[in-house]
Amino acid sequence: MAVQSAESKVDVLIVGAGPAGVMCANALSLAGVNVRIVDKRDAKVATGQADGIAPRTTEVFQSYGLADRLLREGCRVYMAAFYNPNETGGIELSNRAPDVTAPSARYPFELALHQGAIEAIFLDSMKTRGVEVQRSTRPTGIELSTDAAELVDPTSYPVKVTLECLSLDGTAHHEVVHAKFVLGADGAHSWVRNAFGITMDGEQTDFIWGVLDMVPDTDFPDIRNKSLIHSNNGSCLLVPREAERIRIYIQIADTDVCDPKTGRVDKDRMSPEQLLKVAQKSLIPYTLNPTNGINWWTLYIIGQRVASKFSVHNRVFIAGDACHTHSPKAGQGMNASMNDSHNLAWKLAYVLRGWAPISILSTYESERRKYALDLIAFDKIYATLFSGKPVTKENVNGVSHEQFLKTYQTFGGFTSGIGVHYDRSVLVSENAHPTLVRNMVVGERVAPQNFVGAADSTPYNLQDLLPSDFRFKLLVFTGDFNEPIQTRKVEGLVKSLERPESFLNKYPRERFDITTISKGNKLEFDYLKVPQLLRPHWSKVLLDDTDVSGTIGGKGYAYYGIPDEGALVVVRPDGYITIITPLDGADEINKYFAGFMNA
Amino acid sequence: MAVQSAESKVDVLIVGAGPAGVMCANALSLAGVNVRIVDKRDAKVATGQADGIAPRTTEVFQSYGLADRLLREGCRVYMAAFYNPNETGGIELSNRAPDVTAPSARYPFELALHQGAIEAIFLDSMKTRGVEVQRSTRPTGIELSTDAAELVDPTSYPVKVTLECLSLDGTAHHEVVHAKFVLGADGAHSWVRNAFGITMDGEQTDFIWGVLDMVPDTDFPDIRNKSLIHSNNGSCLLVPREAERIRIYIQIADTDVCDPKTGRVDKDRMSPEQLLKVAQKSLIPYTLNPTNGINWWTLYIIGQRVASKFSVHNRVFIAGDACHTHSPKAGQGMNASMNDSHNLAWKLAYVLRGWAPISILSTYESERRKYALDLIAFDKIYATLFSGKPVTKENVNGVSHEQFLKTYQTFGGFTSGIGVHYDRSVLVSENAHPTLVRNMVVGERVAPQNFVGAADSTPYNLQDLLPSDFRFKLLVFTGDFNEPIQTRKVEGLVKSLERPESFLNKYPRERFDITTISKGNKLEFDYLKVPQLLRPHWSKVLLDDTDVSGTIGGKGYAYYGIPDEGALVVVRPDGYITIITPLDGADEINKYFAGFMNA
Repeated sequence: MAVQSAESKVDVLIVGAGPAGVMCANALSLAGVNVRIVDKRDAKVATGQADGIAPRTTEVFQSYGLADRLLREGCRVYMAAFYNPNETGGIELSNRAPDVTAPSARYPFELALHQGAIEAIFLDSMKTRGVEVQRSTRPTGIELSTDAAELVDPTSYPVKVTLECLSLDGTAHHEVVHAKFVLGADGAHSWVRNAFGITMDGEQTDFIWGVLDMVPDTDFPDIRNKSLIHSNNGSCLLVPREAERIRIYIQIADTDVCDPKTGRVDKDRMSPEQLLKVAQKSLIPYTLNPTNGINWWTLYIIGQRVASKFSVHNRVFIAGDACHTHSPKAGQGMNASMNDSHNLAWKLAYVLRGWAPISILSTYESERRKYALDLIAFDKIYATLFSGKPVTKENVNGVSHEQFLKTYQTFGGFTSGIGVHYDRSVLVSENAHPTLVRNMVVGERVAPQNFVGAADSTPYNLQDLLPSDFRFKLLVFTGDFNEPIQTRKVEGLVKSLERPESFLNKYPRERFDITTISKGNKLEFDYLKVPQLLRPHWSKVLLDDTDVSGTIGGKGYAYYGIPDEGALVVVRPDGYITIITPLDGADEINKYFAGFMNA
Repeated sequence: MAVQSAESKVDVLIVGAGPAGVMCANALSLAGVNVRIVDKRDAKVATGQADGIAPRTTEVFQSYGLADRLLREGCRVYMAAFYNPNETGGIELSNRAPDVTAPSARYPFELALHQGAIEAIFLDSMKTRGVEVQRSTRPTGIELSTDAAELVDPTSYPVKVTLECLSLDGTAHHEVVHAKFVLGADGAHSWVRNAFGITMDGEQTDFIWGVLDMVPDTDFPDIRNKSLIHSNNGSCLLVPREAERIRIYIQIADTDVCDPKTGRVDKDRMSPEQLLKVAQKSLIPYTLNPTNGINWWTLYIIGQRVASKFSVHNRVFIAGDACHTHSPKAGQGMNASMNDSHNLAWKLAYVLRGWAPISILSTYESERRKYALDLIAFDKIYATLFSGKPVTKENVNGVSHEQFLKTYQTFGGFTSGIGVHYDRSVLVSENAHPTLVRNMVVGERVAPQNFVGAADSTPYNLQDLLPSDFRFKLLVFTGDFNEPIQTRKVEGLVKSLERPESFLNKYPRERFDITTISKGNKLEFDYLKVPQLLRPHWSKVLLDDTDVSGTIGGKGYAYYGIPDEGALVVVRPDGYITIITPLDGADEINKYFAGFMNA
């Protein structure tokens, strides 16, 4: 029996409470946005599924104040071990290398934690602000207004969604929701994507993989490292996990598992016991047995596809698996998903607060679809190498260890998420001073560096001063503030920032945060000499000096390549650099904000 | 109306829920000891009172898994600033120096946090194990058995305490509690101490100080550093605190506040406004005003006294302010108190579990009373210097800045708590190999050093492998395990540890934890080659190598001064080193444990 309920309105309706959905819901709840999130499942994922957190994603968690729990609960993977065939028909260790090869990673490890635990971090966070997932609820209809005026009016509710909610007794209630924006974070088989006929471009590969989760009993020496194993009996990937578990990805022949009639993977043609036997064979001479049975298993064929578009009129968006599917072995899926909605959330908040026009939302697709295409391109190379037969005397055209290792390390910036680069757009300025600050790149995230508070000598990681709090951050690198020439430049900057046309006066101050970073000696510096405008709080003046122990900090200017004459750096709410200028560049910054910001 | 209730039994009754009491109650609850804690106050301290946590105390918090919250909530004080009279009659900055001068401090800062927040950390922790403070409850009678046989029988309940508990309606209920042990953690005016006629040895000083808490409005440049101010208008000490507050200690003349008849401090003769005026005068030319009134204030005369004994027949103990009173300006009071009961708790647990005889409890007094005497000796020097007039042209015999600074830094090991040294006793062996491990000292705590896990390259601080979990820790420094000569030594050690007379066989294994630390390269080491006895879990084999980032670890052997031929180090449950031997020294360790441990 279906019961019709009343209609309602919401600013943002999120469909799907997987990683992309809950990241977005939590961020919007933090911004105070009127948000609602529904999921057709009646409970969150309990086990299995995606579980790798890349270094950049951990930085993003930290920017939301959520990294502590992630770090406490997750299993850290620091080291990768590469195994290859030896002379006796088994495998042997070729070498070990750091799993994360991006040198600027703040967290130089991957984190393994099951998807349910990751989602719980967001669910618990947003619950403190009263936002919870409405479960057993799915959309059954969606309509987007075709009225051009309505579509560009930020106060309108142009998306009409019909939701079906199942009660415990099986009764289906229907509800019509009018939303300003809808996010389809509803997975690889996205209902929202299909409802708008968005196609997935790309293809299925021939690589078929099985996955096993277990607590191992083994004499394999790298059982607590990520082990990439090429054997003459097939490839496998072994990843350590929380609670003494490991996960193994095992390559299998398609003839073993495909239904010859349909060509589709048929799970009934494979059992976890069979999969385990394949894994055991590829690990010879080492032994591997589950101590307590197989905890979870699955089979998949790698599909490498990207949605043809990520948005419909900037009113309906898709994110996560709804946008891109690829191999899970480089551990990218969940990371790409969460970073999709991290990218989108602050932009939605700006539009809903009236701080920016709807048009800025186009950058979601331009930034994240390009990233997804890069991801697929990488995945093709990587998955092919991974699935390839190892080079041997008999198979001279196989994949060599050197070739694989080089690829693994070359793509380290990409797989860590550190190397993400957003191209020029209304939100990312042209890099008009490309040589000014050598190691800060417009369109990339700010690398971690430690400074000390000028007022109290507390060491601060600059990333911790760039929280995802929906403010643009102005970093004022003064050079040596006590040098008269720099003092004068800083006075000039303050005059410039005090003019009526300055972004600090044109727009409400709450949208901006200012941190001043000087060269200087903590034993002598007087932070009260820094002009008041540049030190909204005593904690906002930093020095490029070591902490009291002499071990932390003091290398920031050199690391970033900040010149003696100083620089201004503006960072977006999501942590990406948008513009870099000299200290007298306030007008360029005014122009940047004038490009998209509403007064 | 008083109602008589039934009698009850408890293993440990703690009187007083201040820092010493809750530290002990939490530790005993962790050990699963039947413990009860009562306090005469009806609520915990809300504001004011002691608030400085020294570096060693933070390490102790960490050993109980409680440092995260302390670090999150507390205000870190990294820097000390020294101000002295200048030519114009005001004060000026002489210099700044790290506030903590103990080079091995893991946490190179003092933490300021009000006493109620510190107590809450323990209260919340012990509540998870079902232990809560029974408030509005005080002892009105206490009797200790004089039966010698009963006193040495660990299963007896020789202490009879009568408790009076006030209900909300003012009704007093009485209860008789029979306890195996009683801890009087009931403050400077300890009822328990007085009940047994324990005297306080020492004297009152002539130094009178006032204390003010406020959120300041000021142009004083070191308002967020600890500032030690000697002016011709008096001395004051300024300590930054959490929530934008500061605390000021202000020296005042006894004529201003003492009742001429009794010679006692009379709070009615002083107001916070008068105190503030004294502070303002000593800060000239800087201004200081409370933004929101005075949050808390008090007056005190420094008394420097130590109890003549800390225990009665090892059945009734006193701890904290009940044992020692001294000046608060070196921030030692609360630290000494918590470390008293940290010292006592594991010993009580061992006796109550039947793992050791009651006689080990004598080391509580021998270790902590000596510490208290050292503390008073230090305090006399420090308080005199602090209260002394600064040297000037007119006052050539005054305290010079150099003299004060030198004293401040000389006692850094002491004030940080890092330098605590427990002398030889049944629980601290003679240092039979004093030159074997140069920088580990029997009787002192283990300094922090980073190593990496041999199985997974995770960096670990060795202190985190020495939790306050009531186990003795055996650290096996193997030297380079892959060197044949060291491999043979380790095999010899294992044989020795496997003999029936080995402590590992003589006593239940649950009392011991083993960590093996080898020199070696994380890219090559195979932890499975380490004998099973020395790796109870894959995480228990460490390497003296850097982590994957190359920035953490790799200096442990050199720092501790571990020789190439390796060493064995045993650490007590409270983190203090008890015996150091060569790798073939298992017999010495057997002998050490035979000295006090019950089978």
